[in-house]
Amino acid sequence: MAVDTKVRVAIVGSTGYGGVELIRLLQGHPNVVITSVISSSNAGVAASEGFPHLTGIMVQNLDGVDVQEMALKADVVFMATPAGVSTALVPQLLEVGLKVIDLSGDFRLKDGATYEEWYKRPAADAALLQQAVYGLSEVYGAEVVGQDLISNPGCYPTATLLGLIPAISAGWIDPSSIIIDAKSGVSGAGRGTSLMVHYAEINENLKAYKLNKHQHIPEIEQVLSQVAGEKVTVTFSTHLTPMTRGIMSTMYANIVGDYTEDDFIALYRQYYEGRSFVRVRDQGIYPATKEVSGSNYCDIGFAADARTGRVTIVSVIDNVVKGASGQAIQNLNLMMGWEENLGLRYTPVYP
Amino acid sequence: MAVDTKVRVAIVGSTGYGGVELIRLLQGHPNVVITSVISSSNAGVAASEGFPHLTGIMVQNLDGVDVQEMALKADVVFMATPAGVSTALVPQLLEVGLKVIDLSGDFRLKDGATYEEWYKRPAADAALLQQAVYGLSEVYGAEVVGQDLISNPGCYPTATLLGLIPAISAGWIDPSSIIIDAKSGVSGAGRGTSLMVHYAEINENLKAYKLNKHQHIPEIEQVLSQVAGEKVTVTFSTHLTPMTRGIMSTMYANIVGDYTEDDFIALYRQYYEGRSFVRVRDQGIYPATKEVSGSNYCDIGFAADARTGRVTIVSVIDNVVKGASGQAIQNLNLMMGWEENLGLRYTPVYP
Amino acid sequence: MAVDTKVRVAIVGSTGYGGVELIRLLQGHPNVVITSVISSSNAGVAASEGFPHLTGIMVQNLDGVDVQEMALKADVVFMATPAGVSTALVPQLLEVGLKVIDLSGDFRLKDGATYEEWYKRPAADAALLQQAVYGLSEVYGAEVVGQDLISNPGCYPTATLLGLIPAISAGWIDPSSIIIDAKSGVSGAGRGTSLMVHYAEINENLKAYKLNKHQHIPEIEQVLSQVAGEKVTVTFSTHLTPMTRGIMSTMYANIVGDYTEDDFIALYRQYYEGRSFVRVRDQGIYPATKEVSGSNYCDIGFAADARTGRVTIVSVIDNVVKGASGQAIQNLNLMMGWEENLGLRYTPVYP
Amino acid sequence: MAVDTKVRVAIVGSTGYGGVELIRLLQGHPNVVITSVISSSNAGVAASEGFPHLTGIMVQNLDGVDVQEMALKADVVFMATPAGVSTALVPQLLEVGLKVIDLSGDFRLKDGATYEEWYKRPAADAALLQQAVYGLSEVYGAEVVGQDLISNPGCYPTATLLGLIPAISAGWIDPSSIIIDAKSGVSGAGRGTSLMVHYAEINENLKAYKLNKHQHIPEIEQVLSQVAGEKVTVTFSTHLTPMTRGIMSTMYANIVGDYTEDDFIALYRQYYEGRSFVRVRDQGIYPATKEVSGSNYCDIGFAADARTGRVTIVSVIDNVVKGASGQAIQNLNLMMGWEENLGLRYTPVYP
Repeated sequence: MAVDTKVRVAIVGSTGYGGVELIRLLQGHPNVVITSVISSSNAGVAASEGFPHLTGIMVQNLDGVDVQEMALKADVVFMATPAGVSTALVPQLLEVGLKVIDLSGDFRLKDGATYEEWYKRPAADAALLQQAVYGLSEVYGAEVVGQDLISNPGCYPTATLLGLIPAISAGWIDPSSIIIDAKSGVSGAGRGTSLMVHYAEINENLKAYKLNKHQHIPEIEQVLSQVAGEKVTVTFSTHLTPMTRGIMSTMYANIVGDYTEDDFIALYRQYYEGRSFVRVRDQGIYPATKEVSGSNYCDIGFAADARTGRVTIVSVIDNVVKGASGQAIQNLNLMMGWEENLGLRYTPVYP
Repeated sequence: MAVDTKVRVAIVGSTGYGGVELIRLLQGHPNVVITSVISSSNAGVAASEGFPHLTGIMVQNLDGVDVQEMALKADVVFMATPAGVSTALVPQLLEVGLKVIDLSGDFRLKDGATYEEWYKRPAADAALLQQAVYGLSEVYGAEVVGQDLISNPGCYPTATLLGLIPAISAGWIDPSSIIIDAKSGVSGAGRGTSLMVHYAEINENLKAYKLNKHQHIPEIEQVLSQVAGEKVTVTFSTHLTPMTRGIMSTMYANIVGDYTEDDFIALYRQYYEGRSFVRVRDQGIYPATKEVSGSNYCDIGFAADARTGRVTIVSVIDNVVKGASGQAIQNLNLMMGWEENLGLRYTPVYP
Repeated sequence: MAVDTKVRVAIVGSTGYGGVELIRLLQGHPNVVITSVISSSNAGVAASEGFPHLTGIMVQNLDGVDVQEMALKADVVFMATPAGVSTALVPQLLEVGLKVIDLSGDFRLKDGATYEEWYKRPAADAALLQQAVYGLSEVYGAEVVGQDLISNPGCYPTATLLGLIPAISAGWIDPSSIIIDAKSGVSGAGRGTSLMVHYAEINENLKAYKLNKHQHIPEIEQVLSQVAGEKVTVTFSTHLTPMTRGIMSTMYANIVGDYTEDDFIALYRQYYEGRSFVRVRDQGIYPATKEVSGSNYCDIGFAADARTGRVTIVSVIDNVVKGASGQAIQNLNLMMGWEENLGLRYTPVYP
Repeated sequence: MAVDTKVRVAIVGSTGYGGVELIRLLQGHPNVVITSVISSSNAGVAASEGFPHLTGIMVQNLDGVDVQEMALKADVVFMATPAGVSTALVPQLLEVGLKVIDLSGDFRLKDGATYEEWYKRPAADAALLQQAVYGLSEVYGAEVVGQDLISNPGCYPTATLLGLIPAISAGWIDPSSIIIDAKSGVSGAGRGTSLMVHYAEINENLKAYKLNKHQHIPEIEQVLSQVAGEKVTVTFSTHLTPMTRGIMSTMYANIVGDYTEDDFIALYRQYYEGRSFVRVRDQGIYPATKEVSGSNYCDIGFAADARTGRVTIVSVIDNVVKGASGQAIQNLNLMMGWEENLGLRYTPVYP
């Protein structure tokens, strides 16, 4: 594909970790050219000033937010911005004919009232909430094709839903029994400064936070309820761990029937057959976050316990890749009708 | 207390983290003098050779394992050795009149067959298994007084049991619903070398391991069953986190009744009243492992969720202190009839 | 010493790491009682609110800055505040008869103009700058006795000066050849939030910063010049390392003569004879920061290279203890005529 | 380039970090196909068994060491093995017509006696030592073209030499004054287990080791002597830092003349013009290891101090990439006459 026929993308929110990871990953995408990197706060500045690792790689200066200019420069816009920005900006982008892949939470919840309850800010336009396709690629990929507005899943929901959907879909676990113990690296909190992310407060420390109060709960419940065909309510705990990247979701549920670990492994391998980014571990092997670091994989393992009748499901992703920018590119690929792993075949960085 | 009236202690297993932590903590104990530091593998060598931080602090050379010599030099022996050593050595120590505080798992399980199933090695003498008092200080402290053989609890069981016992004891949670998601720092694996504890494999990594298979499971179930008055079976997951010290046990259970977080807080504060090492957090505040690092505290917090009818209990300890050597000294204090926090009033090291 | 005869201390700047470490260390000091913990920004709040690890340990609320109240409550004041605060406050404290141990840089440089050049703010009163005794305990301890105003050395200068002074004093190294490559943990940057201390920016990262521009340079040169009897100018580099505590100063100098490692070891052991907090390693052994963590030790090792005629001196401290709060207490001990290690005999926390 | 015309490579030593990084990087190389991954200890086992992150990526089993089979399967062999293996194996590989890129130290030193002194093992055949081209790509790239045996530089030498050669070459610094303070992440020590790389011993720790005794010293001196045209002897210190990847070499030298930072920057930019992997920072900006992590870059910054007449040069690389496997592939590219950055245009992984 010649440069002049490549899809032109703009990235909004380029001073955060999601934006800068889009730059890293898209540099190697054969069908894409980044034509504008946009920052409301740092327009005119070189991208490498805030991110010296981009020296010599991303040489253009940051653009400001200008919808008309974006319409001229780009075909697709990635929104990697804090909650609320997309609510305001995305309608304008769609209006000038741009396609949008939104990495924020603004278009994930179908019900505006639920959004307002959990995000404590005004919801986006109701019609757009309905229009937005929830881009959990391995589950809703078919719906993404050809769409204009994709809402990219949250990091915790991605690890969690990929770990639960096949079992719920098959009726093998009791949806009312689901307990999710999630752990995240610090990059998930973004690049903003606060005492919570101060190195000396995080290092050699493990913190539980937002127990049953994380804004990803309604997102998880929305999808699980749809899959289960009934309202699902989960117990959901989040923990901050002393590492930069990685999410592990350890999930517990009562098995309906007497399925073994091997049964679960077979079920999941069948469910994800042909999807290159989900890897189901062999019996007795559990994935670790480092085994997917820097890559778009989601790795899943199982422990089924006959003593208690429960299954434990362990699902890991790199929160910045499969939990954000990588899956966003996967959705671009699906949207455009390309192979879903185009430009995304990164081997995990190990060690 | 003059030096010649101090209790003389010997430490066996001084080349591991448990042994060396006993040295650190006992240095400041007003009623104790360390008279022998024993290593089967490094007898005759200076303690500071393997542990340079002890330079100028512990100047005596390591002794070999010699029961008669121990009988002459010491009143109390701390066993900080791998599984199996105590099984063989403790009977001899008791016979020569020594008191023993055993930090290994060899005397924790009352049923030898269960020990053999989970530890894959021969169990200790059945009579001694019955004689040994399980030294979970805040719960069984009264039984420790005046005893000769104390079995010091495991690290995971300490954090877990202190977090569950008051609620089970009060009948506020359903024992059959208990799920324990535990996370540990790497020092819990000991000082032995292996790929599992290689820095480059642990750093920036979060691993699940031994799901439903950890040898601390029967220890937890033994105590919970006794407290509940019925056989309790738990789901128990362990995770290795990239930090040196600290255990967090995140526990889930169905509430029996409609108790709130405030109710749980009040219940636990009452249960642990007068016990200086358990600190129950205020409503909405969850403990972090660093907040107890280097100290003998166990900090506990609660989230009760009316949506699911479940309570989440978060309990943290320093695995090397309250999870091993600190609690062993606490048991020494109780055994001797001293204040339980004598020589143990260490403020957590923060940051 | 009964409580009512203990020395009463107040700590100003209790929301920083230096202040909170003073609390940790002073809790165990037999001759001291903390009567006031002072914060200009958080008066009236419980100390444990900002530092939950102090729950149940420091139960009093924070006081505001009120000189008259301090005069009533305390005998000695520790100033653990950012640059500039002591310049303004210390004169008032001295006037009401309080003794002051200042952990900031405000009274370290004898020449106000030099202070203003490096600190970019007005210097303290010139007479007070002369009056203040520079409390590098092992070197100037005799001058500290009975004084009212002690200026506690900086963290980098402490590690560096203890590593260089004996050799310069003996004329064994060429003062004009000194190169100092210093590395620090992140706690040295304080608890303030910034991108520089964001976990995701520090973890798995090693940064050089302020090369030849660190404000500790004039402090080091002032002392070395005095010791050498000539003006000494050093090359001084600072690096931020991904750890919380610890400073290592690796120092290079040309040997004047043909002294060997054993000679240096003997020289330093003689120089520091009787000083419990400096430990000189044996030939071929170099100290590591973890070997002094949580303690007031400064450990030193040597490599003398006949090929180049240079000596490499490695000096490590815990920046929060010997580099700040520990040495401040050591100075209190000296000031009061007590043993210098009173209440400071903490074994390093290992691992 | 069709698969059947791609260059076929074999990797020996695939159970170490260098080997597995070759796999990661070569997966994306357009002109190369990996036809054999060889392990003397694990032949017949799946590569993903020891490295689960390769699940679904490297599906072939490990081969044993069989020179005839290698000759059939491959065109080029990468040797990523401990010292000594290449000495024995490389002559056989060359004999059957294979090209070899050796990542070990076995062919770096031209003088066998020097090798034996520093490596404590027999040197390789003297003729081969002369034949081997030292593949410091930016300096000796022209000599690599078309060769059969490339000796890939060590990690410390790569960072150090790229930071010193332009200045020495220009005569701007005094070669007799060079002091090198190097710091490395733990992956540089390899995947072998030992107490030295135990997580609990490394985390929150900074260690100096092998002062003036590291086997990379003769390698550095050999090249610097050649460049300077006189025998150069350096002071060289190595430090182990608590991170997985990254090397920083902080170098000190006396400036010959009165060159400023801007002069050095201009000199180095001219020297490395057209070489895509060396990035010279702007005035006052120093590189950090994370800014090159996962990539083949070497970033360099300068501080010139008029007070002391010294320049401080900071050079950083990812030790596993530019310090090993990445530069090896760069050498393959040069050897084959391809663009040097082919298949190596990885943006650093940040954060």
